[in-house]
Amino acid sequence: MTLPIRPTVQGLSGERFQVTYHLQGNEAEARAKAIDITLEQTVEFPDDLVPDGDIRTHIVGRIEEFAALEPDQFVATISFAIESGGHELPQLLNVIFGNISIKPGIRVAKLHLPASLARHYRGPRFGVVGWRALLGVPTRPLLMTALKPMGLGAAELADIAYRCALGGLDIIKDDHSLTDQPFAPYHERVERCAEAVARANQQTGLRCQYMPNVTAPAGEVLERAHFAKQAGAGALLICPGLAGLDTMRTLADDEALGLPISSHPAFYGSMVTSQHNGIAHYALYGQMQRLAGADSSIYPNFGGRFAFSEEECRSIAAGCSDPLGQLAPIFPTPGGGMTLQSIPTMRDVYGQDVIYLIGGGLHRHSADLTENVKYFLKLVQA
Amino acid sequence: MTLPIRPTVQGLSGERFQVTYHLQGNEAEARAKAIDITLEQTVEFPDDLVPDGDIRTHIVGRIEEFAALEPDQFVATISFAIESGGHELPQLLNVIFGNISIKPGIRVAKLHLPASLARHYRGPRFGVVGWRALLGVPTRPLLMTALKPMGLGAAELADIAYRCALGGLDIIKDDHSLTDQPFAPYHERVERCAEAVARANQQTGLRCQYMPNVTAPAGEVLERAHFAKQAGAGALLICPGLAGLDTMRTLADDEALGLPISSHPAFYGSMVTSQHNGIAHYALYGQMQRLAGADSSIYPNFGGRFAFSEEECRSIAAGCSDPLGQLAPIFPTPGGGMTLQSIPTMRDVYGQDVIYLIGGGLHRHSADLTENVKYFLKLVQA
Repeated sequence: MTLPIRPTVQGLSGERFQVTYHLQGNEAEARAKAIDITLEQTVEFPDDLVPDGDIRTHIVGRIEEFAALEPDQFVATISFAIESGGHELPQLLNVIFGNISIKPGIRVAKLHLPASLARHYRGPRFGVVGWRALLGVPTRPLLMTALKPMGLGAAELADIAYRCALGGLDIIKDDHSLTDQPFAPYHERVERCAEAVARANQQTGLRCQYMPNVTAPAGEVLERAHFAKQAGAGALLICPGLAGLDTMRTLADDEALGLPISSHPAFYGSMVTSQHNGIAHYALYGQMQRLAGADSSIYPNFGGRFAFSEEECRSIAAGCSDPLGQLAPIFPTPGGGMTLQSIPTMRDVYGQDVIYLIGGGLHRHSADLTENVKYFLKLVQA
Repeated sequence: MTLPIRPTVQGLSGERFQVTYHLQGNEAEARAKAIDITLEQTVEFPDDLVPDGDIRTHIVGRIEEFAALEPDQFVATISFAIESGGHELPQLLNVIFGNISIKPGIRVAKLHLPASLARHYRGPRFGVVGWRALLGVPTRPLLMTALKPMGLGAAELADIAYRCALGGLDIIKDDHSLTDQPFAPYHERVERCAEAVARANQQTGLRCQYMPNVTAPAGEVLERAHFAKQAGAGALLICPGLAGLDTMRTLADDEALGLPISSHPAFYGSMVTSQHNGIAHYALYGQMQRLAGADSSIYPNFGGRFAFSEEECRSIAAGCSDPLGQLAPIFPTPGGGMTLQSIPTMRDVYGQDVIYLIGGGLHRHSADLTENVKYFLKLVQA
């Protein structure tokens, strides 16, 4: 044995957080996977080389629950010392699903964060209640659209934003594919669109928000966000799959910024598409976005052009609002092919605390964009 | 129609980059997926709403190749205007695999980057040749280990580092689970370990490098990296799945830093584990790490405790060295359960330009860590 014997571990509080995993295989295989998680996610050492003492007792994960879920699927809830996550989001995610993301047949189902851990995370700065207060819309579902297609110039995008805002839309976001391309450079686009929305607000008396996409090179995200705020943007869009979940957190935590945030699911899709690997919709698009500071989590709605089921979408909405430490509930924001026809079903599924994201469908209804917005808004209010 | 008719798109060079996708389904289904990619990854608009003119001609992706690969699997190579990626890595990744990551049955197989795009990326600052020069090891495979298990204090980890460096190891990295926990705080750990390795180097006359893990909250990565350099660290470890690929790029691009970088695969696993979704090993652990500035890409070797096949590992090694613009070849760095027995096979697969990462196996061989290192080094040199 080459390691110190019976080491004590400094700084442990004894408090633990838990992660529920779904494990594929027969009982013996699933149990082996559970044991593997306890090691792989912590000491990353073969069991027989783990020193006795605090490391074995407190650092190695602990199986708190193990039960059959369905044939060849088991559920295991495993606890970890809260200090293993070091109160840093990247490392917390690493303990939850670092190395074992590479092993097939393991899926993160749910996070259980005690108050002692959750209080290290602000989470959403606004949440449902705070964002509604900013907009002055107390109860009905909110309506959001995306400025597109890629290729239009800043003036053209601003014109679309103006016409949408005139109709009473609540939030007008950049398409997530608009960053800083030559055809609509970031700073020009943000200035023009923010101005266009402000001009419409002066006419309507409403508080429509322009929400630029600040997904950018790592060193430029905060700078772009602050520029957006100065230009009059009312909210921010970011793709944490591309920029990092913790980058989104820095936006939410920035006191001087103080803008609500929508997260976009780009690049993170393969984490959910395989039923038995990755991270469940509930945890990835609900809990993790919220933990990382999103006030709204955008995802593809059921019945649109993506393959999420109604049940998966319901689970995302639950992950956005189920108790999670002191973190405020956030808006599920279904998009991706919403149509007029889908609104009644969506009302049943999501209730009032939802942001409907409508893109192409808004342009299809008639040739008058402002009228289209009014029409959708009436449907949403009904 | 609510959009401007026949818009011209500003700033297009006419140059395009290509992505090869593998698509599941019969020919009609696969072709529909290919067409879908051309729209979803660019204009994100229904085809009939896409304005004629430059947007349809240049912005929408173009199917350059479509062919059968095997029953119910097709290959499509699709080109995109290089400006759609805006010369920013997050947006380039977004065009490659943003929204369509959420659609099942689509897998990124390979990137083809013309010189006009690749020259916007430095990629690895050192690569195989540069890192070898730093170490003074011109031809043989390099040997790396990880300091662990989580829970040890900084002094204990430094002692392990010292004993490993005395044996002649080339690179001693933090386990990727060591960040800034109370039991081994970042700054203390880095100072102690760097000092221990420097002390060993004075005795051996070698140039062993200590490689701390700078995976950290978004605003602290660069600060930790510079602290590490000041303390005498010779290289850096980061988990781009947790911190963001573009965060790794900022480390590689930082002139004042100038340290070689290993990327660790934590959290990115579910992108490869499902055969028909996500990103191929070649592209994710080879090309993308290299594009984002890694000088070595760590991944689980075949035959260890993970499930990668020999073929998948060969493909990663190819992705680390196949021509990719002007980007230097980097070291494939297989780890995850390497044993004495596996060395001959690994030599056949990887040849000389490889870093062998050995963790637990190094502690198992005998009770004398320094002797264990010497023994492994002899095997690697053989």
